[in-house]
Amino acid sequence: MRGAILYGPRDVRYEDREMPRIEKPTDAVIRMAATCVCGSDLWPYRGIQPISGPQPMGHEYCGFVEEVGNAVKNVKPGQFVVGSFATSDNTCPHCKHGYQSSCMQREFMTRAQAPFLRVPHADGTLVPTEGTPSEDLIPSLLATSDVLGTGWFAADAANVKPGSTVVVVGDGAVGLLGVLSAKQMGAERIIAMSRHAKRQTLAREYGATDIVTQRDDEGVAVIKDMTKGVGADSVLECVGTQQAMMQAIRCTRPGGYTSFVGVPHEMKLDGQDLFYSHVHLHGGPAPVRRYLPKLIDLVLSRTINPGKVFDLRLPLNQVAEGYRAMDERRAIKALLQP
Amino acid sequence: MRGAILYGPRDVRYEDREMPRIEKPTDAVIRMAATCVCGSDLWPYRGIQPISGPQPMGHEYCGFVEEVGNAVKNVKPGQFVVGSFATSDNTCPHCKHGYQSSCMQREFMTRAQAPFLRVPHADGTLVPTEGTPSEDLIPSLLATSDVLGTGWFAADAANVKPGSTVVVVGDGAVGLLGVLSAKQMGAERIIAMSRHAKRQTLAREYGATDIVTQRDDEGVAVIKDMTKGVGADSVLECVGTQQAMMQAIRCTRPGGYTSFVGVPHEMKLDGQDLFYSHVHLHGGPAPVRRYLPKLIDLVLSRTINPGKVFDLRLPLNQVAEGYRAMDERRAIKALLQP
Repeated sequence: MRGAILYGPRDVRYEDREMPRIEKPTDAVIRMAATCVCGSDLWPYRGIQPISGPQPMGHEYCGFVEEVGNAVKNVKPGQFVVGSFATSDNTCPHCKHGYQSSCMQREFMTRAQAPFLRVPHADGTLVPTEGTPSEDLIPSLLATSDVLGTGWFAADAANVKPGSTVVVVGDGAVGLLGVLSAKQMGAERIIAMSRHAKRQTLAREYGATDIVTQRDDEGVAVIKDMTKGVGADSVLECVGTQQAMMQAIRCTRPGGYTSFVGVPHEMKLDGQDLFYSHVHLHGGPAPVRRYLPKLIDLVLSRTINPGKVFDLRLPLNQVAEGYRAMDERRAIKALLQP
Repeated sequence: MRGAILYGPRDVRYEDREMPRIEKPTDAVIRMAATCVCGSDLWPYRGIQPISGPQPMGHEYCGFVEEVGNAVKNVKPGQFVVGSFATSDNTCPHCKHGYQSSCMQREFMTRAQAPFLRVPHADGTLVPTEGTPSEDLIPSLLATSDVLGTGWFAADAANVKPGSTVVVVGDGAVGLLGVLSAKQMGAERIIAMSRHAKRQTLAREYGATDIVTQRDDEGVAVIKDMTKGVGADSVLECVGTQQAMMQAIRCTRPGGYTSFVGVPHEMKLDGQDLFYSHVHLHGGPAPVRRYLPKLIDLVLSRTINPGKVFDLRLPLNQVAEGYRAMDERRAIKALLQP
């Protein structure tokens, strides 16, 4: 089998990798229907997050169960399944509280950009669909695996409710699906902060009522103006930088909610800034597993179309082009199929 | 009139100060029944928070309305009133959301260690009691002005619910009243982190079910052991240091709630630590005004006795001794009466 391996900054190759097999009785092996490149893959790709050696890549996946271990009860060979980028037993206390991405047995998936994938804790991680989904729904189902689940968590962690005024910082695929999620949760006003024409269009299609192109002090001032000096109820920080985080906190009204769902890089929050901001802050790796059944239903019923964030589709062996296109912001998100 | 003035590190004097008078039609002047020294007063007293010159001190107060401005409607001369350390109009959008301590017209009180005090925005700031309260309730009513209101906010911001497992970091008056508040909110288990015998006793009296004397890594390990490796649902950080904050976050289970209510000093939170902790974080200056009516009721009905945190009572002219006793941890909190 061949799969994606990152060798160093901007050096992804499609090379021989070991064929995955059942290693533990709780494992499943799936045959990939579709996988993709994540915004978080760009951190090591750009060399900002160092790697210790050649590293298999990918953590978003959906496909058909090929084989299961002896202990697996909930999924069967032949079923179509989606799983989270973080595995979970779905039975530990953290899982029971809805934080499956902090499962006591969590493993982060790292080898999904390949035709086959071993999924640990298959029973707690994978969610099968009823029957085989229509081919055109594959991109949207793939999106539930991480990028939609993460956008959904961003909106949920920012306490978006019917009638809320929402700001989304970041116009990557997660931010765009944060807009979609806020819309589904009944937000009245959704302000997308974006300076990229194509992404603005998709943001509007997903439910953004306003676009703000300014950033930092200027961006914060515009949001304050738009909210009569109050600030937004809910702000979704979907980037992971210091700048985006401070922008998000400062756009939030006192007593409002700021969420953050991109892995923070070199971010330090000043205690007094946070104290006097009076915001609620919540984030972390999205507990996608909590939301999967609902999100899969929304996709299968064609209520939402998160798959539109995939504006580039490539055969898996052209994975390197997928990284390049996203790095250069030519593509929002690249879908890969074997 | 004389009142407390801080001149520099450990130099508080009781000296001539201007007699407060009505300056704006929305002001009231009150005659102090009791005031006190706050843990936050110790930051400038110890020279950790620099002052630019001699500074009148004090922000906790209750007493009798002496005079009101023309525009004041809700309080009348002769009434007994309690107010928050932060003034509020109680009508602006932030106030309406329950964040009166971020009121658009907020002023922080700074001259309460004196026999008379001007209170701006009297209508939105002061809460009168029905009739004149019994003398023995004065300490508890004074406590509602800040220290109880802040402990209550700590428990509320940490989402304490019936059945919760709660940890309180900090055994100052706020921490102790955080214990009392958690108990009132129905917490099942309340673990007070304290290494001070007298404070442990009061913590138990207020509802602590367990005392942990260890700190930092060791303290976190004990809390994890006590919660079967899970961590607490709600952790109240009632100190304001980096050490206390990290201890609090690390004692919280993923998906749990950490609150912080002491003004942070030289605190920097690492974005990735916060991200992977998966906690909800909320704090800031306590919106005491939101809670005052309820807390005053609980005091007047003798349901709670927060006044017990005042283990030192002094005449106002001995204010310097009040600071010394708290600085040296001889007293939990010093009550001052004219």
